Amino acid sequence: MTHPAAPLNHFDLDQAVALHSTALGHYQGATQAAWQNMVGPFGGITAATMMQAIMQHPQLLGLPVSLTVNFCAGVAEGAFDIVARPARTNRSTQHWMVEMLQNGEVVTSATAVTAIRRSTWSSDETVMPNVPPPEAVERKVFAPMPWVQRFEMRPIVGELPLVWDGRESESLSRLWARDGQARAVDFVSLTAISDLFFPRVFLRRATRVPIGTVSMTVYFHVGLSELQAVGSGFVLGQARAQRFFNGFFDHSAQLWSQAGTLLATTHQVVYYKE
Amino acid sequence: MTHPAAPLNHFDLDQAVALHSTALGHYQGATQAAWQNMVGPFGGITAATMMQAIMQHPQLLGLPVSLTVNFCAGVAEGAFDIVARPARTNRSTQHWMVEMLQNGEVVTSATAVTAIRRSTWSSDETVMPNVPPPEAVERKVFAPMPWVQRFEMRPIVGELPLVWDGRESESLSRLWARDGQARAVDFVSLTAISDLFFPRVFLRRATRVPIGTVSMTVYFHVGLSELQAVGSGFVLGQARAQRFFNGFFDHSAQLWSQAGTLLATTHQVVYYKE
Repeated sequence: MTHPAAPLNHFDLDQAVALHSTALGHYQGATQAAWQNMVGPFGGITAATMMQAIMQHPQLLGLPVSLTVNFCAGVAEGAFDIVARPARTNRSTQHWMVEMLQNGEVVTSATAVTAIRRSTWSSDETVMPNVPPPEAVERKVFAPMPWVQRFEMRPIVGELPLVWDGRESESLSRLWARDGQARAVDFVSLTAISDLFFPRVFLRRATRVPIGTVSMTVYFHVGLSELQAVGSGFVLGQARAQRFFNGFFDHSAQLWSQAGTLLATTHQVVYYKE
Repeated sequence: MTHPAAPLNHFDLDQAVALHSTALGHYQGATQAAWQNMVGPFGGITAATMMQAIMQHPQLLGLPVSLTVNFCAGVAEGAFDIVARPARTNRSTQHWMVEMLQNGEVVTSATAVTAIRRSTWSSDETVMPNVPPPEAVERKVFAPMPWVQRFEMRPIVGELPLVWDGRESESLSRLWARDGQARAVDFVSLTAISDLFFPRVFLRRATRVPIGTVSMTVYFHVGLSELQAVGSGFVLGQARAQRFFNGFFDHSAQLWSQAGTLLATTHQVVYYKE
């Protein structure tokens, strides 16, 4: 689903998730400066790289249904290895174990389910909220980290606080987002987009504290044709925290196409200090 | 947190999750007839058994923050092996990989994060809905499978359809639930309780179709003292589907103590046929 005339790594996202296979399920890759966060790479690009290891595996059955990524340790700048294996292959579903290693130590782990889908009765229950269209919303860059520039984001509600005064408010955010180079969405980029919400604790507390996602899950609710219909269009993201308790909070989020298809639902649990 | 005067396996739940350690991180267990579902054991008890393997591991650091369980294949009646290993141990967090095997093949996989929590600013954002207390709600047994009898359930809204007429409705359920033997809640039983919602597709479609959970994630939002405060009291469960698409749907759920503490948030993706 990359542009037919474009070379494979024309896009920043494809450069970051490029993996060189050295043996069945064994890959080498490297972090990219363009995707750096405060410390280490943006978690979404790490998650997308884990997904890429599955997508280019010769034994892949079907397409992604779920992905859980555990951020075990900081990913250091430079090379990494990935090992991906199907732990179980059934008739129409497949279960994956993926590990990213640096210096022989696990820095990221993941499990995933892929499946061959059949046409069935289908229905949306969580409908897209009523929001202004992307062209009616101003583009903003909420922070100076490189990865933030890799997306075009148009926040509707729940931006980063303008004043860090410790005043508590709800943590709901809604924004339009798409790849900054208008790369067409696929399962790999949808994985990255699933992590683009800034930490809910910043919004909830209007206080900056050290944070780090420890685990993230994405459920994919589309097939190839639904993603192709999105193309390089905007995705509406919505995220809200549920509970903050003694150093960890969760958030629950949805990603819709502009046409109102719920593309993915995603959850994460995040460490915070203080 | 079992009753001090009770033998270890006094409770049905403890019998089902009992593991015999044969080497560091290697365990043997067996399915129990009392926890059977339509086919194979209740997924919640399988998930609880994976959690038990972590909880009794000598290298455990801290307490559970998140757990993802992948139901790779049907668990057959009888013996199983579990292998649990800390993939990465940091100063205050630990990342786990767990596999359940039968005849040398993976039937269930899991990853988890445990952590030593510190006292910090804490806050609930998703507040408990206003519902009648458990004693004002009638106890019901929604289905004849053995595992259903292991819980005391008092449904408030969103029961199984009385008439399977294919009429579509929203999939929201709320119910009070606790262990049927009033066993005090701990991280293992909270894992089992996280899976006690019947399939949302039954409610949404008023149609019975074959289903099976493929992946489930639980985020734990409490420490030991918060669980001890719950004791053998009721937990309010709330679940709702987000999207049904070509053979898979997700649901998002919350579990509160009667005092209003959000104990856990949990999500799953479920296969359905037709």
